[in-house]
Amino acid sequence: MPQIRQNPVTKEWVIIATERAKRPEDFKDRLEEPERKLPEHEPNCPFCPGNEDKTPPQVFALPQEGEWQVRVIPNKFAALNRNENLDQHCEGLRWSVNGAGIHDVIIETRKHNLTTALMSTEQIRMIIEAYRIHFDQITKDERIQMVVLFKNHGPSAGTSLIHSHSQIIGVPIVSGDILQRVITASRHYEETGKCLFCQNMEDEKKDGSRIVMETKHFIAFIPYAALSPFHTWLYPKRHMARFTEITNKETDDLAVVMKALLGKFYYGLKDPDFNYVIRSAPATLKRPEHFHWYITFIPRVTKTAGFELGSGMFINPSLPEKSAEFLRNVRVK
Amino acid sequence: MPQIRQNPVTKEWVIIATERAKRPEDFKDRLEEPERKLPEHEPNCPFCPGNEDKTPPQVFALPQEGEWQVRVIPNKFAALNRNENLDQHCEGLRWSVNGAGIHDVIIETRKHNLTTALMSTEQIRMIIEAYRIHFDQITKDERIQMVVLFKNHGPSAGTSLIHSHSQIIGVPIVSGDILQRVITASRHYEETGKCLFCQNMEDEKKDGSRIVMETKHFIAFIPYAALSPFHTWLYPKRHMARFTEITNKETDDLAVVMKALLGKFYYGLKDPDFNYVIRSAPATLKRPEHFHWYITFIPRVTKTAGFELGSGMFINPSLPEKSAEFLRNVRVK
Repeated sequence: MPQIRQNPVTKEWVIIATERAKRPEDFKDRLEEPERKLPEHEPNCPFCPGNEDKTPPQVFALPQEGEWQVRVIPNKFAALNRNENLDQHCEGLRWSVNGAGIHDVIIETRKHNLTTALMSTEQIRMIIEAYRIHFDQITKDERIQMVVLFKNHGPSAGTSLIHSHSQIIGVPIVSGDILQRVITASRHYEETGKCLFCQNMEDEKKDGSRIVMETKHFIAFIPYAALSPFHTWLYPKRHMARFTEITNKETDDLAVVMKALLGKFYYGLKDPDFNYVIRSAPATLKRPEHFHWYITFIPRVTKTAGFELGSGMFINPSLPEKSAEFLRNVRVK
Repeated sequence: MPQIRQNPVTKEWVIIATERAKRPEDFKDRLEEPERKLPEHEPNCPFCPGNEDKTPPQVFALPQEGEWQVRVIPNKFAALNRNENLDQHCEGLRWSVNGAGIHDVIIETRKHNLTTALMSTEQIRMIIEAYRIHFDQITKDERIQMVVLFKNHGPSAGTSLIHSHSQIIGVPIVSGDILQRVITASRHYEETGKCLFCQNMEDEKKDGSRIVMETKHFIAFIPYAALSPFHTWLYPKRHMARFTEITNKETDDLAVVMKALLGKFYYGLKDPDFNYVIRSAPATLKRPEHFHWYITFIPRVTKTAGFELGSGMFINPSLPEKSAEFLRNVRVK
């Protein structure tokens, strides 16, 4: 029987279409592991070592001394202009803000052919550290209201660049979607005195059927109303509004969890294209006690079609409980 | 200079990224016109004449007598169950409704290889008539709160079935996105006594730079804050909340406009994959004076990536004014 479920945090409705349900195995994207066929160094790749002069001057790199392992650079084709002052314009019903903001790229490794699942935990830790440093810098920019950090892996996820990288965008407005989530969380906090995300986490722990993995500081689960197959949320257990509040110990743990989770995708779903996004309280909020940061992982194994575009609802042809069970059982080498 | 624009109707913000802007010509999907290579009849296609017994029993067909030209059938892999009564379930924070609803397919032609742009105006008129009849039937179903009618054309738009068809889904809830639009329009109506859509249309007519085409009863334009390149809205000029209020004369005109508009995509963008969606006032509203139905056309020439998934905002690498100019100038054979 199909079922329509509401995500308790986003209030999004999803049709869990069991009649068209596929077995988790049916979503495997590729049968081979393509990374192994790629060279470790590609002379024409602007992100490979030796081509540093082909990118705009770097913002910073880690480690701070010696050879870079993670490198943050402005996006050569930036969607926003970092050197502009904020300016807005109204004309009748039409509003616009000039494109002042930040759009940077985080090059995540020196090696052209490495994907996160195959990196060392130390490397992933350094990537997260670069994320944290730059997230914090952009949040402090007076013009910026919202910071979005995301990774696109593979053409279905919106990138044709193979060399592992993420992007960070600081926007001078808050989108309606994010505003809506903040309002929902804030209302819940006002009404119950509790964090909606913490309560959702307790709920999921009690139920257990959608948990993918759990460590000392993190818990990964497939939401009750997951928008698509294997869509996974990763919550820090400690209540904190902003990603930038993460401690060193939590960062250590996050590196382990991200390697394991992306390893489950890599081995279990055969290196699917994927996105992930760090969702943190908007930069514009001074004291967002009601918010709780988390990371969304989205393997791109299905396509959005007219129904999704037209209704804002999703049809998920998989059962979250079955997908979670499948991922729990994937052994990472 | 990049610019961030707000859609006056949906209040969605879009980054118009002129730095990465492409010329309209760069979005051409294919260089050849693939339809011509396909057979007019495909023995294994369940939508082709002669295979009527391979689909679930038909709901209705047009014309009412003689050989069908448009055929409405239940979706064989329906996302919702038409024979179920409504039932809901709450558990802690988790809400669900059982999957009671309608999910039907409109087979738009007897010919396997025909795409809307190449059909006769009479055929398109009959398709719209089938849309109207079935939209009305589903709207009257006591269980249904929202009806979504959409077409997926091509793999990037979410279908692998070549035979021209659309889908109609009746859902027993209203999605957050649609609710938000209804609230926005209703607030505008309360505050100004005017329909937000009518005012937007007047605004666009006065400006002129984003108009793609205009007829007696319809106007097609690229929204000021279009989410993606060539994203086009088609408004009926007469204020009406529901698609089902369309008159015979307006239907005649709509057939002409749809053929011309999809022809502009077909010849100008070389048969891109696309979706379209009819957006009508939710079935649940009894007197939605403040709403105004319209059709959204979305050529799938770009991909949504992590930023869009994470922020609900879009980056559009094209200037709406330039895209509109390009489409205005495409000559349809």
